[in-house]
Amino acid sequence: MNEAALRTLLHSVASGEVSVAQATERLKRLNIEDLGFARLDRHRALRVGFPEVIYGPGKTPEQIATLAERLTAAGQTVLATRCGPEAFDAVRARISDATYHPVARCITAVRGRPPQAAGTIVVVTGGTSDIPVAEEAAITAELSGSTVERLWDVGVAGIHRLLASHERLYHATVIIAVAGMEGALPSVIAGLVDRPVVAVPTSVGYGAAFGGLAALLGMLNSCAAGLSVVNIDNGFGAGYVAGLINRLAGLRSE
Amino acid sequence: MNEAALRTLLHSVASGEVSVAQATERLKRLNIEDLGFARLDRHRALRVGFPEVIYGPGKTPEQIATLAERLTAAGQTVLATRCGPEAFDAVRARISDATYHPVARCITAVRGRPPQAAGTIVVVTGGTSDIPVAEEAAITAELSGSTVERLWDVGVAGIHRLLASHERLYHATVIIAVAGMEGALPSVIAGLVDRPVVAVPTSVGYGAAFGGLAALLGMLNSCAAGLSVVNIDNGFGAGYVAGLINRLAGLRSE
Amino acid sequence: MNEAALRTLLHSVASGEVSVAQATERLKRLNIEDLGFARLDRHRALRVGFPEVIYGPGKTPEQIATLAERLTAAGQTVLATRCGPEAFDAVRARISDATYHPVARCITAVRGRPPQAAGTIVVVTGGTSDIPVAEEAAITAELSGSTVERLWDVGVAGIHRLLASHERLYHATVIIAVAGMEGALPSVIAGLVDRPVVAVPTSVGYGAAFGGLAALLGMLNSCAAGLSVVNIDNGFGAGYVAGLINRLAGLRSE
Amino acid sequence: MNEAALRTLLHSVASGEVSVAQATERLKRLNIEDLGFARLDRHRALRVGFPEVIYGPGKTPEQIATLAERLTAAGQTVLATRCGPEAFDAVRARISDATYHPVARCITAVRGRPPQAAGTIVVVTGGTSDIPVAEEAAITAELSGSTVERLWDVGVAGIHRLLASHERLYHATVIIAVAGMEGALPSVIAGLVDRPVVAVPTSVGYGAAFGGLAALLGMLNSCAAGLSVVNIDNGFGAGYVAGLINRLAGLRSE
Amino acid sequence: MNEAALRTLLHSVASGEVSVAQATERLKRLNIEDLGFARLDRHRALRVGFPEVIYGPGKTPEQIATLAERLTAAGQTVLATRCGPEAFDAVRARISDATYHPVARCITAVRGRPPQAAGTIVVVTGGTSDIPVAEEAAITAELSGSTVERLWDVGVAGIHRLLASHERLYHATVIIAVAGMEGALPSVIAGLVDRPVVAVPTSVGYGAAFGGLAALLGMLNSCAAGLSVVNIDNGFGAGYVAGLINRLAGLRSE
Amino acid sequence: MNEAALRTLLHSVASGEVSVAQATERLKRLNIEDLGFARLDRHRALRVGFPEVIYGPGKTPEQIATLAERLTAAGQTVLATRCGPEAFDAVRARISDATYHPVARCITAVRGRPPQAAGTIVVVTGGTSDIPVAEEAAITAELSGSTVERLWDVGVAGIHRLLASHERLYHATVIIAVAGMEGALPSVIAGLVDRPVVAVPTSVGYGAAFGGLAALLGMLNSCAAGLSVVNIDNGFGAGYVAGLINRLAGLRSE
Amino acid sequence: MNEAALRTLLHSVASGEVSVAQATERLKRLNIEDLGFARLDRHRALRVGFPEVIYGPGKTPEQIATLAERLTAAGQTVLATRCGPEAFDAVRARISDATYHPVARCITAVRGRPPQAAGTIVVVTGGTSDIPVAEEAAITAELSGSTVERLWDVGVAGIHRLLASHERLYHATVIIAVAGMEGALPSVIAGLVDRPVVAVPTSVGYGAAFGGLAALLGMLNSCAAGLSVVNIDNGFGAGYVAGLINRLAGLRSE
Amino acid sequence: MNEAALRTLLHSVASGEVSVAQATERLKRLNIEDLGFARLDRHRALRVGFPEVIYGPGKTPEQIATLAERLTAAGQTVLATRCGPEAFDAVRARISDATYHPVARCITAVRGRPPQAAGTIVVVTGGTSDIPVAEEAAITAELSGSTVERLWDVGVAGIHRLLASHERLYHATVIIAVAGMEGALPSVIAGLVDRPVVAVPTSVGYGAAFGGLAALLGMLNSCAAGLSVVNIDNGFGAGYVAGLINRLAGLRSE
Repeated sequence: MNEAALRTLLHSVASGEVSVAQATERLKRLNIEDLGFARLDRHRALRVGFPEVIYGPGKTPEQIATLAERLTAAGQTVLATRCGPEAFDAVRARISDATYHPVARCITAVRGRPPQAAGTIVVVTGGTSDIPVAEEAAITAELSGSTVERLWDVGVAGIHRLLASHERLYHATVIIAVAGMEGALPSVIAGLVDRPVVAVPTSVGYGAAFGGLAALLGMLNSCAAGLSVVNIDNGFGAGYVAGLINRLAGLRSE
Repeated sequence: MNEAALRTLLHSVASGEVSVAQATERLKRLNIEDLGFARLDRHRALRVGFPEVIYGPGKTPEQIATLAERLTAAGQTVLATRCGPEAFDAVRARISDATYHPVARCITAVRGRPPQAAGTIVVVTGGTSDIPVAEEAAITAELSGSTVERLWDVGVAGIHRLLASHERLYHATVIIAVAGMEGALPSVIAGLVDRPVVAVPTSVGYGAAFGGLAALLGMLNSCAAGLSVVNIDNGFGAGYVAGLINRLAGLRSE
Repeated sequence: MNEAALRTLLHSVASGEVSVAQATERLKRLNIEDLGFARLDRHRALRVGFPEVIYGPGKTPEQIATLAERLTAAGQTVLATRCGPEAFDAVRARISDATYHPVARCITAVRGRPPQAAGTIVVVTGGTSDIPVAEEAAITAELSGSTVERLWDVGVAGIHRLLASHERLYHATVIIAVAGMEGALPSVIAGLVDRPVVAVPTSVGYGAAFGGLAALLGMLNSCAAGLSVVNIDNGFGAGYVAGLINRLAGLRSE
Repeated sequence: MNEAALRTLLHSVASGEVSVAQATERLKRLNIEDLGFARLDRHRALRVGFPEVIYGPGKTPEQIATLAERLTAAGQTVLATRCGPEAFDAVRARISDATYHPVARCITAVRGRPPQAAGTIVVVTGGTSDIPVAEEAAITAELSGSTVERLWDVGVAGIHRLLASHERLYHATVIIAVAGMEGALPSVIAGLVDRPVVAVPTSVGYGAAFGGLAALLGMLNSCAAGLSVVNIDNGFGAGYVAGLINRLAGLRSE
Repeated sequence: MNEAALRTLLHSVASGEVSVAQATERLKRLNIEDLGFARLDRHRALRVGFPEVIYGPGKTPEQIATLAERLTAAGQTVLATRCGPEAFDAVRARISDATYHPVARCITAVRGRPPQAAGTIVVVTGGTSDIPVAEEAAITAELSGSTVERLWDVGVAGIHRLLASHERLYHATVIIAVAGMEGALPSVIAGLVDRPVVAVPTSVGYGAAFGGLAALLGMLNSCAAGLSVVNIDNGFGAGYVAGLINRLAGLRSE
Repeated sequence: MNEAALRTLLHSVASGEVSVAQATERLKRLNIEDLGFARLDRHRALRVGFPEVIYGPGKTPEQIATLAERLTAAGQTVLATRCGPEAFDAVRARISDATYHPVARCITAVRGRPPQAAGTIVVVTGGTSDIPVAEEAAITAELSGSTVERLWDVGVAGIHRLLASHERLYHATVIIAVAGMEGALPSVIAGLVDRPVVAVPTSVGYGAAFGGLAALLGMLNSCAAGLSVVNIDNGFGAGYVAGLINRLAGLRSE
Repeated sequence: MNEAALRTLLHSVASGEVSVAQATERLKRLNIEDLGFARLDRHRALRVGFPEVIYGPGKTPEQIATLAERLTAAGQTVLATRCGPEAFDAVRARISDATYHPVARCITAVRGRPPQAAGTIVVVTGGTSDIPVAEEAAITAELSGSTVERLWDVGVAGIHRLLASHERLYHATVIIAVAGMEGALPSVIAGLVDRPVVAVPTSVGYGAAFGGLAALLGMLNSCAAGLSVVNIDNGFGAGYVAGLINRLAGLRSE
Repeated sequence: MNEAALRTLLHSVASGEVSVAQATERLKRLNIEDLGFARLDRHRALRVGFPEVIYGPGKTPEQIATLAERLTAAGQTVLATRCGPEAFDAVRARISDATYHPVARCITAVRGRPPQAAGTIVVVTGGTSDIPVAEEAAITAELSGSTVERLWDVGVAGIHRLLASHERLYHATVIIAVAGMEGALPSVIAGLVDRPVVAVPTSVGYGAAFGGLAALLGMLNSCAAGLSVVNIDNGFGAGYVAGLINRLAGLRSE
């Protein structure tokens, strides 16, 4: 039952066409879907500032392209993650201004510009192999209206590189710290700054890294307060939650 | 907003006191709670046939007794699981007809009699150490209106004991198979009968039993079809789902 | 010793040709196989309502085709799971009316129609990637005589989609809930309805999903009663046990 | 080298007492400690808004009391977590206005009032057993200047309880969602609201809950975006990071 | 149906009192239990050579004593494992010649003497902490008729102690190698001798020993052929299977 | 120092050419290698009855062929496990009478005939997918002089198939029970017979089978005594230890 | 056969009392024990520099005291680890100059002074809870002749504390880095200095620390080269290996 | 701020151009980067003796070649690990004297010769499959100035092979022990010698080897003191730390 239908029903009650008892009965049966319009509105508003996301794995290039086309047709920004070049070819055949980000393996097509958050998200990686995950986080955050600074390869094995960058860290609103292997980077950063740190373990490593488990456990057990963790390799999730946090700090007046 | 309030609102619309626009606005804001009465009715009906459950661990005897008293005051049957004798003493001080089941470590106080299911649930254990979990399952099933047969200590290490009981298994509507250590019993039973088998791994065992993990994995990997699994030591869960299944097979005409 | 042989032996005893002592000796040696005819009859009856299953992995297309042919030659329905198109080509070369279900990766060839259960199994998935497992469950249940409704992509991340479908869930006899990642769907459903829920974790996910382990643990630890769990990706097992349960609720009068 | 010493050195350079070469040499050797005053200042400022934390386990009541006394002597607020009543007795003997929070098992003694954040942190639990962890989070957040709303026992097994509270969730700035067993609560909440959700798995549960592992994995694998996770039972960590986030949203004008 | 009953039935057939059809029907229904007498005989014979075992944990001293008394009353040897001194007190009150083995924590009461195997079982431990498990194995093997030699504390960290004993190892029929921590002892022994080695991991160790898991994995992955493994701390199981093997090598002529 | 050298040294002592002090010094320095001749003799004798084994993975066909040729040149039997057809082609090019066992993926070339053990090893599998591992066990046992009976596909899901074969199991000297998935077969067998059972878990299965872990844990936790376990898929290890055990039971008089 | 016996035998050969053949036979049978004197000498020499170690857990105070007395009677230094005060009381009753180290829970009694290594071992902890393990390491190293510097509570959460101490780290010969929780400290240190770092994970932490597993994995996966790891809480092992390394750098000239 | 800039600033203070207050302010803001030159010098010195390492996985041949070229252009030695022949082709196209080590899968190009350590590192493997990891360790150690002896295939299954080599082990300064499967080799070696042993678990094995986990746990739980462990398959890490240790023992006078 959409708003028009509800209005019609109430008019019928007002006019006496429908009895109060009948209307009561019908409204009691309203399922949540019928009330959905409010939520959908809210969702639509929300989506102005955030892309619909297509998760690539397990989908054919054709399926990805179809979903992307449907979104742009509805005026929405597209973000497709973990996609290969074939998927991009299929998307570009339908959306001529789509962009491929080869490092992050993301496809984007921007429609409208979300409100720009005033703060800055700094994305930091421990090593060069963590960059794909970090780029996925950075692109996600940018699409949701955040300014992003990238700081690659400042892992704790050479702590002086990290410390040399501490000015940039101090000016961040939120920090996304991406690291594999032992995953110590977010701990060190959270010990240096008093901003929320979103920690992203990566599957970089071998042997007892167990596909990112070592980094994940390291981050969860951080002796530094101020950090929280997302799933292994989940750049998108980190970028999304960092974007939500950054938006709290206010919008850029333009 | 309960039904009376809804009715009042609609009368106001019918009488013209409230405009259609105003009523639309109010009804759009209806949160789910307001629609809750239908669901609550359904739930209340459901509860006639099933006890409210109090999970004992982490609660003081006094807290358990208070919760139990509130339920019986509302005319509902009580089932409190994993409770020691002190908890029972506290409950009996308030509910004089409460019963303690020392093996299952359950407290019950029956109020009203649920509709009796026509079928039979057979609860089987591999060893004597599995009986507490099995009793919890049996009591739960009985309280929900099922007839229960108990068949203890027929584990696969002496397969002839199990086979000797196959007639009883063939007459079951549902079977709850409770076993620790390697947890092979449900597999063997599911290979013998064509009834749903609810498998309950127990934490009985030592060493590489890893607190029931071995039994759990064994049951999940059963090469026999027709069984599904609940959590380690979860007698209550097994009794509950077996009760739901048994009820599907029809009620006893009385 | 089949029934005829037993009868002959008893006639010989009746006629005095064989002494009681000799017959006692022979009957004592009866091994279980000899008594097997009763079980086989029961099995045959059972099979009228349920397909023999061929598990594809580790078998060549030729082996699958041979097994399938043998079953249809015996008038039995075939269900081959986890088979690629090559296997289907091999089967169709021998069984012209075989059908391939590409999403579920199943091959079926129906012989006879099982008694139709009166109830309905609703198969629900959390996401689109769970559909192959859900389809395997649905096809298995249909072949065993159940009516199946499919409800795809109603995961808890957008709980309103699930709630919007609650009417369909309330009318189910049994629900099969299929979900990967955190596997919360079956918990939410079991909290909404009072029907048995068969939970199927899938290996959909990455990182700390650990190939379905996260979903499996989530389902086993559900705080909602009324659900039981099968192995990761085990659509067949879920469909089979749901079929057994659904049959308990009675057959369709035709 | 503190600021005064630096100043003295530079005066000596200015007066010619110390040559440039000598001063260069000394300043090159400055270790980080010498530069520490800036950092310490920053830290002190930070501490105005946040309590020093004493982690109780492994410390004697006497040690906890000594640490607490030292902090209050320095004019700082005390938060001691995971402490029993004996520890509180020892603390109160020295700090007469100390408070014990028996559910959270925390000791607090407030010195000065941190700047109050304008937003609201809503702390939600799945069950009653999760409340101690949630209270630790709530107290931590309150001490750091956040307004906290508590919403207990709205787990997904009875999803209608959660949905009934969605208005309160929509008004939150940050949400802390605390749940044990399968840990599905944060997923469901993150699917309903577009605010950052800090998920806290608890060790509540048994069997395959594996001390909180199931809840942890469930939260990490959430199919809903917008949440990040802290360690099992880490109420303090969740309260701390939520406080940092809430502060981003601005301070209350008073 | 026991043998007498079968005989009676056949006499009735012979006399014409029971028709062949009726007898066929009854015999078809013979369940396995009825055929059990052969098996029971076999079992009884087997038990002459092997004690019934009472597993102590989870049983009260009184229950252990009752079970032990029933066994001795039936003329059978008793072996109760993992029992404390209280259990022994209860047993001795009923069985005056019962013996307590404090290191192995076993209670024994011998009735009859099993046939003595000609070979020798050598039980070896890596360290002194492994002796309780090794003693349980040794006592089990002795009760089943094997001669046992004990060789304690010859772990691989001081390989020369082991090598110094190689003569004794060469003369063994079967070797039981008991070790905790890294569990390397059985590998080294299996590389020295060409006799079956039964490897018993123990829970001795700390940290990454994970309760015996490290030793268990070490033994399963042994690069030496000729060994097989039982559960962690399962001295009884090792003694039992070693006894079975040793018996294969022939009995002592007496 | 070989025996001749030792003899020469002693002759020199006897003749006075070498002083007692010098000889003492030299003999003190004797390293273990020098004492090795005894051990080598023993090993050589042992090898008459058992093939040298080449473990295929990680070796090129050429390397396998070279090793095999060296063994046959020394008059020894070859067993190469886990080899593909390419490896066999390379071996046959050098050893014309080599045989390939495609199911077990073994290459054999027999040189000499080991003493034949009097007993019989029965190799049993739960399913058809376990046959490759079982064949590796069977071939290993045959090469070491054991008579082997194969009993395929008698898993516990259809327990009647296993029971139908119990006569064959009762006549075995040793039983090798090979099973994947839940791995219950060895437990059931050990409960039926009083012979040593060597249990072999296989990696057959999916999902929570975790590559054979479920079967392994099931076998280690067997509630039946009399079985011991080898590594997942370790057919060779099972065949080797079963051969050692079988040989204990005596040799066939020929 | 000790050296004297060997000498006697050779004299008998020299004198002709024993033939060369007989002597050959006897010497061939020499087991390794007989050759042990060389090794024992070497061991004794080694022990001058290193205490015999008594591992406390599982031993009674009386047993510990007996072992300690035997060592001092032989002129050897005693180190007993993981011992409570009762054990110390028992030891002191026999060895009046024994010392108890309550933090490390070690008992020592020094006999003789090992050669003093020229280098310095710096033992560093991440937090105060790691000190007991670190003290065990420090005491072990000191007893083996190393000079030890202690640097407590410099964990990575406050990286400036660590950096402030880098001068002391640069002057170390070997560093033992002890840390629980996420265990990042050794990585950071190994990135700062070019000395061997022995990393000791501790079981300090809760939740996903999993008893030290998180710290262990973190250290094994360190992205910094130059570190190696010992078992969780294994202070003794770290002190021992660091002592061996430190001794390589030369002895102190005295 | 580099040294020149610092000097200029101080000159300005000396000349009065800059006030003490201004200079204080600027020097307080000095970030760690500015102080970095000392550290960089130290690092450069260090690098004379040790190659920069390029970790191959996840890098294209072109990227590896570029990095390698940059290093040699700076006069530094190159070590690239885990590289295939394609990577080598790309490197050789730019660095004509580069060498490929096919077993270790390393590329090296030596520039300058590090100071040669006086001691010897002995690298030992349990089996032939461990050689690639061992070679990586050996090459790393050689490049850092150590003399390396290789001792392949002396695993504990044939302990006499190891013992036969004990003279070579006794002469080592450091031992690197590389083993897969149960990983017992380092324990046995550490029990024989009193030198530091660096243990390297490898992923060699199958089934319950779990990719090297069994070997890793075995080594961590070694009952022999004197060993420490690196990550699974981490030959480079072992070679690096062994090189650091070996250098402690002094340099070769040349």
